[in-house]
Amino acid sequence: QSHQAVFEAGVAGPDLESQLRARGFTLGHFPQSFEYSTLGGWIATRSSGQQSLGYGRIERLFAGGRMETPSGILELPPFPASAAGPDLREAVLGSEGRFGILTEAVVRVTPLPRTEEFHSLFFPDFEQGGEAARRMLWSGIPLSMLRLSTAQETETTLGLAGHEFLIGALERFLSVRGVAKHKCMLLFVVSGGEQIVKTARKEALAIASGCGGVSVGKTFGREWNRTRFRTPYLRNTLWEAGYAVDTLETAISWSAIPGIIREIERALGEALAEAGEEVHFFTHLSHLYPWGSSLYTTYLFRLAEDPEENLHRWRRLKDGASRAIIAQGGTISHQHGVGVDHAPYLPAEKGPLGMAVLGDLCRRFDPSGIMNPGKLAG
Amino acid sequence: QSHQAVFEAGVAGPDLESQLRARGFTLGHFPQSFEYSTLGGWIATRSSGQQSLGYGRIERLFAGGRMETPSGILELPPFPASAAGPDLREAVLGSEGRFGILTEAVVRVTPLPRTEEFHSLFFPDFEQGGEAARRMLWSGIPLSMLRLSTAQETETTLGLAGHEFLIGALERFLSVRGVAKHKCMLLFVVSGGEQIVKTARKEALAIASGCGGVSVGKTFGREWNRTRFRTPYLRNTLWEAGYAVDTLETAISWSAIPGIIREIERALGEALAEAGEEVHFFTHLSHLYPWGSSLYTTYLFRLAEDPEENLHRWRRLKDGASRAIIAQGGTISHQHGVGVDHAPYLPAEKGPLGMAVLGDLCRRFDPSGIMNPGKLAG
Repeated sequence: QSHQAVFEAGVAGPDLESQLRARGFTLGHFPQSFEYSTLGGWIATRSSGQQSLGYGRIERLFAGGRMETPSGILELPPFPASAAGPDLREAVLGSEGRFGILTEAVVRVTPLPRTEEFHSLFFPDFEQGGEAARRMLWSGIPLSMLRLSTAQETETTLGLAGHEFLIGALERFLSVRGVAKHKCMLLFVVSGGEQIVKTARKEALAIASGCGGVSVGKTFGREWNRTRFRTPYLRNTLWEAGYAVDTLETAISWSAIPGIIREIERALGEALAEAGEEVHFFTHLSHLYPWGSSLYTTYLFRLAEDPEENLHRWRRLKDGASRAIIAQGGTISHQHGVGVDHAPYLPAEKGPLGMAVLGDLCRRFDPSGIMNPGKLAG
Repeated sequence: QSHQAVFEAGVAGPDLESQLRARGFTLGHFPQSFEYSTLGGWIATRSSGQQSLGYGRIERLFAGGRMETPSGILELPPFPASAAGPDLREAVLGSEGRFGILTEAVVRVTPLPRTEEFHSLFFPDFEQGGEAARRMLWSGIPLSMLRLSTAQETETTLGLAGHEFLIGALERFLSVRGVAKHKCMLLFVVSGGEQIVKTARKEALAIASGCGGVSVGKTFGREWNRTRFRTPYLRNTLWEAGYAVDTLETAISWSAIPGIIREIERALGEALAEAGEEVHFFTHLSHLYPWGSSLYTTYLFRLAEDPEENLHRWRRLKDGASRAIIAQGGTISHQHGVGVDHAPYLPAEKGPLGMAVLGDLCRRFDPSGIMNPGKLAG
């Protein structure tokens, strides 16, 4: 009746979902790492699932639970909401194991949607696709996902899709409708009861059409859904083919989106110039909010013979892009967490007083520094 | 384009809304204290507006800002979302002036809805009204407000409405439809574009009808909207008539709602028994979530001649109800904050380790204890 479920925090994504589905529910939390990540890990890293637009980030889904720390147990009662002082769940969320170990978590679950549709559209350019996405968000239409690729990512996706003949037909279909060279793909998902899904779909398609969008139906969306957890496996295939691949991500207000994409991609493009190496990169908006968006950039570079040189190349790319993110005012991570890679850039957004607060939390929960030492605030 | 607005935190509700409305936007945050409370106050007390179901609590609307503290400035960048460690906004939210003073706040705003409808229904009893409300929430229908009164509050509201003839006609209308002695009033609000509002209204009414609800149209809802900020003014009128009135509130999971209402009302009913005084009380669910609800109880008692005796009576009532809330597992406040009245009950929900964390925050931001001393963690 309360639509809450209690799990041991070590439960992996598929186990959690299959237990809920057997009872007609879903958590609706599907990060790309879904198959191998755990509920406790999602909470400790402030994870965001692909359909966070509909179900919410893990911050919304995590109602409470128990954290075992060297200083004792922190019990977090699963209130629907509370005005009783600062919310201590928010200290556990993003704590990355530094304060203690979450042993039990109460999560908020949703009845499985009766209907779910994955729609794809193409826009003449990124600006018009972005305008359509924002108008959908501002209109209050209940969508469970939005995803907008830049022209470069759209081109790469279509190029990698195989099916040369079909893609050619698609491009001719779009071209006569004014969607050609700079085309950008938008995916939207509607989930829920039949009437709500029908109204939401109609409204979303009308907004898209008003911004120059051309609907291509549900084929691409279904394909995306079928392969939604597979992209990470490409890493090994590419490595064997002589290429390294990594991704980076941030989030920022809408007005700053064009600038931050430009600066991140410029930094990636220039990072290996001295080595004479080209870098291939492409970006999409993966988690959209009425006030801004996360963006997710994939970059590939050629492997050298020397592993040290590969690490050096990656460091230059990562550092250049991270500096661009900070300079533009983005967060160093929207969904991946801090860990080791992002630690040097954390003080820029938390500030000296904020970092001191994180240090206090570390000392309070873990006075001897035995829990994942070195992370967050040292 | 980013649908964010920057305010000095001392701006009062009406000033904030009129500035936004002139540009076609709303914050959508309407606590009952709207006319006299400020943006900074809403943030410092974790306030919840009457339409939080649609617009979100202040936690969702507060994107970032600046807090001046004795230890320096805490800058909170207005990211759409972030996975970069614990969220420091959540330390400012609910800080009740204990850490510093919020001088600037970035808030997330929404275009003014094209349509807004206030619908009233009556249910045969509280259980059926609650079932309808939960089904509406679980179905994902985009509503901006739900409010369900117990039978006692419904009776009091209708009794105080005046218009004896009209209320009599209403009661006969409901009675032939099986809604009589234990009837409970439910109010729901739909806001947004025409199509979404139409679909949401139809779906909500169909769910209500399936749970025995009888729609009485928009008259009651419009009247509620017209007088939504007026109830607090009744306090002085009642005082002059010889009665004291106060309210209390909490939030808890759905399965615990019937028990906590029963125990709160039992505690209020028994608190003045030794003085031979009766207490009148009534309750409604004011902020509903798919996983639980807040509840809001109004209680009245007769004034004695001696002001000390009045304070004593109030203390007995407040303490009895607060103990009932804690014993049932509710939060000591869903929307009013901690302040002085709720401070004794805070450790029960934060726990010793949680209280120690709050103490650390106080010392970090305000080492000399000069900011609203004595509040939160002393």
